[in-house]
Amino acid sequence: MMNAQQAKIGIVTVSDRASRGEYQDLGGPAIREWLDKALTSPWTAVPRLVADEKPVLEQTLIELCDQEQCCLVITTGGTGPAKRDITPDVTAQVCDKILDGFGEQMRAVSLKFVPTAILSRQLAGIRDRTLLINLPGKPAAIADCLNAVFAAVPCCIDLLEGPRLETDPAVIKAFRPG
Amino acid sequence: MMNAQQAKIGIVTVSDRASRGEYQDLGGPAIREWLDKALTSPWTAVPRLVADEKPVLEQTLIELCDQEQCCLVITTGGTGPAKRDITPDVTAQVCDKILDGFGEQMRAVSLKFVPTAILSRQLAGIRDRTLLINLPGKPAAIADCLNAVFAAVPCCIDLLEGPRLETDPAVIKAFRPG
Amino acid sequence: MMNAQQAKIGIVTVSDRASRGEYQDLGGPAIREWLDKALTSPWTAVPRLVADEKPVLEQTLIELCDQEQCCLVITTGGTGPAKRDITPDVTAQVCDKILDGFGEQMRAVSLKFVPTAILSRQLAGIRDRTLLINLPGKPAAIADCLNAVFAAVPCCIDLLEGPRLETDPAVIKAFRPG
Repeated sequence: MMNAQQAKIGIVTVSDRASRGEYQDLGGPAIREWLDKALTSPWTAVPRLVADEKPVLEQTLIELCDQEQCCLVITTGGTGPAKRDITPDVTAQVCDKILDGFGEQMRAVSLKFVPTAILSRQLAGIRDRTLLINLPGKPAAIADCLNAVFAAVPCCIDLLEGPRLETDPAVIKAFRPG
Repeated sequence: MMNAQQAKIGIVTVSDRASRGEYQDLGGPAIREWLDKALTSPWTAVPRLVADEKPVLEQTLIELCDQEQCCLVITTGGTGPAKRDITPDVTAQVCDKILDGFGEQMRAVSLKFVPTAILSRQLAGIRDRTLLINLPGKPAAIADCLNAVFAAVPCCIDLLEGPRLETDPAVIKAFRPG
Repeated sequence: MMNAQQAKIGIVTVSDRASRGEYQDLGGPAIREWLDKALTSPWTAVPRLVADEKPVLEQTLIELCDQEQCCLVITTGGTGPAKRDITPDVTAQVCDKILDGFGEQMRAVSLKFVPTAILSRQLAGIRDRTLLINLPGKPAAIADCLNAVFAAVPCCIDLLEGPRLETDPAVIKAFRPG
């Protein structure tokens, strides 16, 4: 079993414009900020910024899972219906298992704010011992989505025999069935 | 980018009995009637009536997407669990991307009316620049399903670089994030 | 069409520990008890207890569908994200069609009790004329899930040309659209 001190979390911004420097990456820092508030156990961010290109994203996700051994990889961007949106496709491809409940729940929560939530193809899945979660590109939606699903994340990582994540209940109350 | 004047919408009735003339096609006209009320921008219907047969449906969907260049193709019928119900299977096969949120939301709304809504396999997906949406065969359910998802359709077609669809807010309020 | 007198229902417990006798099978009996209360038409249980192993589960499901000709097969266990959890994967593999609405609805209902409901990969599908449904391993969740979806099961089995299942409306009211 991995040690709590070694919890690594991959944070992957998928954006053509941000990767070319035409645009500041706001999604990655928004994820990091949310995790900084939510997690009370030690963790290290492993940030990446890539274009909406299948081979580079695939390689990045595999590296974060297999080499970096992140217990969790969170992506932002590329979840929509447009031609360049390929994040969920690549995520599904590198995963052994898909957890449909994450996408369902994130869309159900986003749907309370915008009817276009049904256009999001964001999903979550597992590659060996890593949980991967797609978030939308819009920084405003990132906290909504993490609030919607993160209570189940520490338990999932326990089941994958990863490090024990502890959370601040004022932000999110991790649920572990008794 | 396509021109607003050229908006073509494929309307495909999938029914063994209606295709043999044993039964009047009610689903196709119900979709057309709903769109006539909902859309205020110019559009042309491209109607088709086919049997529940994989090759003919596949060919029809591909023709409406690739030759007719419809920005939207809506099917009715063949979404259930019976042996002859093959519409979602063929739709998924011709699509590059599946938009799970459409099926989730249409089932969630139908579930308020009938517990058998969970038997519907209706889905939506994208083939190149065309959005495809499956609706059930029952005319009564068609308006419920379109009401449940159509607010997101014009934005989706914008993202696919198709014609700009405008709607009558008294029927459905198209949502385009600012 | 099958005869009502011949309704067979497969009940499959998927558990490494229970299959080795280290642990009493509680899931299988909980399903049987629920069905005994819910069904008023004649039926026979076909119980199986297997380890979380792909080949043995696959063979068991195929046997219950193709040889035993069960109209319904219900599994318990192996629906989570852990490495040994393979029930939904094997179920999907033996099915011709997936009915996404079952998993969505069971997760939506379980989510009212526990935020970790989104970790469940439980699904339902059809193999030829058999409906297969995955339930979680926890006996407490079995009744919640069956209450959430069973109203649609008799209609589904009608559509698959199976035996007519009748239910006690005090337990669950089977819905058959008029």
